[in-house]
Amino acid sequence: MRRRSFLELAALTSVGVSAASAAPSLPHVNAARLRERIEGLSVFGRPPGGTFADGVSRVGFTEADRAGRVYTMSLMRELGLEPGIDSAGNISGLRAGTAPGLQPILFGSHIDSVRGGGNFDGDVGSMGALEVVATLSENRIATRHPLEVVIWAAEESNYGGGLHGSRMAVGEIEPGEWDRVQDGISKRDALRAIGGDPDRIVEARRPAGSFHAYLELHVEQGGRLDRAGIPIGVVEGIVTIDDYDVTVRGFANHAGTTPMPERRDALVAASRVVLAVREIATAEAGAQVGTVGQLSVSPGAPNVVPGLVRLTVEFRDLSGDTVTRLGAALRRRVDAIARETSTEIELTRSSRHEGARANPRIQAAIEAAAATRGLRSMRLPSGAGHDAQMMARLGPIGMIFVPSVGGVSHSPRELSRWEDCAHGADVLLGTILELDRIDRIG
Amino acid sequence: MRRRSFLELAALTSVGVSAASAAPSLPHVNAARLRERIEGLSVFGRPPGGTFADGVSRVGFTEADRAGRVYTMSLMRELGLEPGIDSAGNISGLRAGTAPGLQPILFGSHIDSVRGGGNFDGDVGSMGALEVVATLSENRIATRHPLEVVIWAAEESNYGGGLHGSRMAVGEIEPGEWDRVQDGISKRDALRAIGGDPDRIVEARRPAGSFHAYLELHVEQGGRLDRAGIPIGVVEGIVTIDDYDVTVRGFANHAGTTPMPERRDALVAASRVVLAVREIATAEAGAQVGTVGQLSVSPGAPNVVPGLVRLTVEFRDLSGDTVTRLGAALRRRVDAIARETSTEIELTRSSRHEGARANPRIQAAIEAAAATRGLRSMRLPSGAGHDAQMMARLGPIGMIFVPSVGGVSHSPRELSRWEDCAHGADVLLGTILELDRIDRIG
Repeated sequence: MRRRSFLELAALTSVGVSAASAAPSLPHVNAARLRERIEGLSVFGRPPGGTFADGVSRVGFTEADRAGRVYTMSLMRELGLEPGIDSAGNISGLRAGTAPGLQPILFGSHIDSVRGGGNFDGDVGSMGALEVVATLSENRIATRHPLEVVIWAAEESNYGGGLHGSRMAVGEIEPGEWDRVQDGISKRDALRAIGGDPDRIVEARRPAGSFHAYLELHVEQGGRLDRAGIPIGVVEGIVTIDDYDVTVRGFANHAGTTPMPERRDALVAASRVVLAVREIATAEAGAQVGTVGQLSVSPGAPNVVPGLVRLTVEFRDLSGDTVTRLGAALRRRVDAIARETSTEIELTRSSRHEGARANPRIQAAIEAAAATRGLRSMRLPSGAGHDAQMMARLGPIGMIFVPSVGGVSHSPRELSRWEDCAHGADVLLGTILELDRIDRIG
Repeated sequence: MRRRSFLELAALTSVGVSAASAAPSLPHVNAARLRERIEGLSVFGRPPGGTFADGVSRVGFTEADRAGRVYTMSLMRELGLEPGIDSAGNISGLRAGTAPGLQPILFGSHIDSVRGGGNFDGDVGSMGALEVVATLSENRIATRHPLEVVIWAAEESNYGGGLHGSRMAVGEIEPGEWDRVQDGISKRDALRAIGGDPDRIVEARRPAGSFHAYLELHVEQGGRLDRAGIPIGVVEGIVTIDDYDVTVRGFANHAGTTPMPERRDALVAASRVVLAVREIATAEAGAQVGTVGQLSVSPGAPNVVPGLVRLTVEFRDLSGDTVTRLGAALRRRVDAIARETSTEIELTRSSRHEGARANPRIQAAIEAAAATRGLRSMRLPSGAGHDAQMMARLGPIGMIFVPSVGGVSHSPRELSRWEDCAHGADVLLGTILELDRIDRIG
């Protein structure tokens, strides 16, 4: 399908693209307006006195997040997408389709950020989704399927877990979910403050098969597209993530009076665990990664041999089996390290986030939409988690990546070029129209 | 001198021990009273609802410290040691001598603790010093030299530095000393709250040669005496301590989207530094130690490759040259680690605490005093810092150690047996009387 243009396709098929076929040509999104809206959103959670380049802290459920949501809903109203808030806090708005009985094409992203994050992660896909609707409306293009734009609530890790809104949409509520406390506020109260309702959370659940396709435009967050100079990434799938909590128990003692051979230094043992994680992740070929991102030392004084270290370990790979095997390898290494350092080490898997494969037909549609625009594309896995992986449990999904300059992400230095953001929205628009031709994805 | 008893010595010498020679025998301290006073002191800073075994947090300058000081001064008053507070907050009281023109024998310790400390570090020497005076007075033993009991203010690490009171006594004021803030209070105000006066700090300075000897009874804080089953340690000297601040700069990035080969993981590099410190300290024979006690990871999220790690390194040895050599070895290793991990590592020596040798004649006097009591003793270095190391700049010093069960220290589990505490005070008493025979230590 890569060599056929959108219009050729439209001409070839009897189903056709009702209104689009009446348009003089496949329209481009308005790149300036897309930029303007991303910049408009960036002020909510901006560091005091900062500029766009200083990034954003629009942590889910906070006041900055609430302000960003109000802004986004006002944009939706301008587009005639009357926004509703479900009991999980997800915002969505519907644009009617022309054919009766077809499921909506669902697309969108999130507007919350990590603390000290950037202005592209989530925002490009959210504002890009609105831009697609604006472009279709301006060009009077109707679609057969209804279009539903969704802004998922609190996608970033928050209250001890990520993908809040899409997780609720598949009914995956964790034990103690509402009693978790952050910055002195329970998640129960935090959700209420954005218009959700934990007592009616089941109402946020979406049935399997309730959408034709779920599409998400997002920045890559890695550096593969940028290095390759390719503007469009066609996501093959989202990695499976296993998170572990590790507790190393040694014995805290005075650093001056405890001879080296008698120490049970929890930090020495933990340092060996950190290096083991890296060794395990790099021991075999493949794109798997292993990370120790959090580590705390107790009691934490320069003159006290550390008695206790807590750290996190995370393994990711497209293959769930690989992720399981890396964890097993770590367990063997940890047992040996504990013996050799006279410490006790507990390794507990705290969570598994199942990955998801993108639907092949949707991957092909994205490739076709990129080719139609004359944009080069490449297939790649998503190392980051996305709301799309939750939606994959309910129906076919696909993701479009645009390059992250230098692969920087979750940082104020996160950057995607404006023209790449617009290309991504163009491909999202094209993909929607491609998929709109089909009643049901096989 | 080890085989001669105190009374034999008293009979052999023409100088003699004026009043002691009139006593029927060398008296023992009152072990029960010593215990009672240590237990009495333990309530100030005890965790709420806790018992003696739950340790103490009597951090220097805090309310608990002030309460402990009031208690100690009341005990001094009972003994006729009218307590004064100098501008550094040190408490001292004088007992007159019988011979004119002789310098006082200075002895004591500290009553402040680390946060979450035990009831023996400092307290045994402080209450032991008072017990010695009580025993002398009860037995109507006069000394030729005046006796001065000193309770040094804020010995433990606090406001970014330890040995506060004795450091002020040698005039070693650090840049910004008074502007340091802890728990929201400047050191300037904290010192005032215990009766000191930063504006008149020079008045706390003691001239060189202003005491005959400085003696300090202390718990060992290590496990050598306990393991050897020897009740008295004769301290050979106090180790030199070099402290380093290490900053490892990598690059923070998304853990899912940054392939292993492209990572500049500050924690991986820092873990290698931790292991290098241990390797360097154990590479050669000797009692030197190397410790990483503090380490913080930034940004510190499970799904973010660490971009910045700060850690402390401490090397200790009796030989200052050895300590310097260990630091140089670390610098070479750190440069190699930085190259190999694509990180930048800064290694800055933040302080050097010069150690001190105990006076040989005082060491011999301690050994003799132990032998007189029928107590076995051994010589050993002090791996911990003590106020004695500051006093060594002004005159001859000596330290008496009693065993720490299991070598535990700076912990609620810190423990010295009551009979060992009493033995230590007995040896302190004997050493004072031994040294009192001499007008001046060579």
